[in-house]
Amino acid sequence: VRVIGIDPGLTRTGFGIVDRSDGRFSALIFGVVRTPAGDPTEVRLATLGREMAAILAEFRPEVAAVERVFFNNNVRTAMSVGQASGVVLAGAAEAGIGVQTYTPTEVKQSVVGFGGATKQQVAAMVGSLLRLGDPPPPDAADAFALAICHLNRSGLARAIDKALA
Amino acid sequence: VRVIGIDPGLTRTGFGIVDRSDGRFSALIFGVVRTPAGDPTEVRLATLGREMAAILAEFRPEVAAVERVFFNNNVRTAMSVGQASGVVLAGAAEAGIGVQTYTPTEVKQSVVGFGGATKQQVAAMVGSLLRLGDPPPPDAADAFALAICHLNRSGLARAIDKALA
Repeated sequence: VRVIGIDPGLTRTGFGIVDRSDGRFSALIFGVVRTPAGDPTEVRLATLGREMAAILAEFRPEVAAVERVFFNNNVRTAMSVGQASGVVLAGAAEAGIGVQTYTPTEVKQSVVGFGGATKQQVAAMVGSLLRLGDPPPPDAADAFALAICHLNRSGLARAIDKALA
Repeated sequence: VRVIGIDPGLTRTGFGIVDRSDGRFSALIFGVVRTPAGDPTEVRLATLGREMAAILAEFRPEVAAVERVFFNNNVRTAMSVGQASGVVLAGAAEAGIGVQTYTPTEVKQSVVGFGGATKQQVAAMVGSLLRLGDPPPPDAADAFALAICHLNRSGLARAIDKALA
């Protein structure tokens, strides 16, 4: 199974692709799609859409695990995160890729074991699970953690199905 | 000049296309893009993107006047409006169409003359400016009002340029 984790944002959208075979995780690639702050919002959103479409076409993940946006006190950021999230979700559906969304708390709970984990703890656990040597940079860690969260949860769902069968 | 006004939403996205020639407005078409509530969010967003792309390709407006989303107390609605707005804005930029965003208050100010105008007042003024006979239905009125707002403002900007030249 190949899963792409995506943490959408207008300025930076982190992504990380994880393969699982024989119960082992391996990191395929990670990166950040950046859009120039000087461009109009609609152009930045179109750029994000094109870049993500190219990444999905190149690496053909079967599932996209996308951070579920929600709204904090920063209205300006919330709006642009919502817009970027819309473009990412529509692009994944357009590419025929299944989508699951997870909140940051769900991701931490799944990857580290508790929802209040720090960013450093998430990065350390991601580095260990993917055998990266060093903890990955923050954007990559968050994106990989989304992919791992999805793989953990779908693995658990399969195990439960098997146990109940 | 041909302008499309767009009021984005996940469930309903209203659009209305207005032509201006010789200082007169005329309504070309209006409609609503609806997405099925039973579909996953990402599929609904992709549907919205495809439908809007088809409308832009068919009628080739030069400018899209899009309602500027902002966040109210309804977090759930705000999120989906932000996502739909992102898809609409990216699609317009992708189609090479200029985008301007306007807040509801700016639209009412421009079309009716004061920012506190009611929906009925906006619909009545839109019906009158476009010589529609009857006031248009709410979705159409809001979308047409966005297009008229843009035309008023760009006309004013041209007049000021001329006066200062």
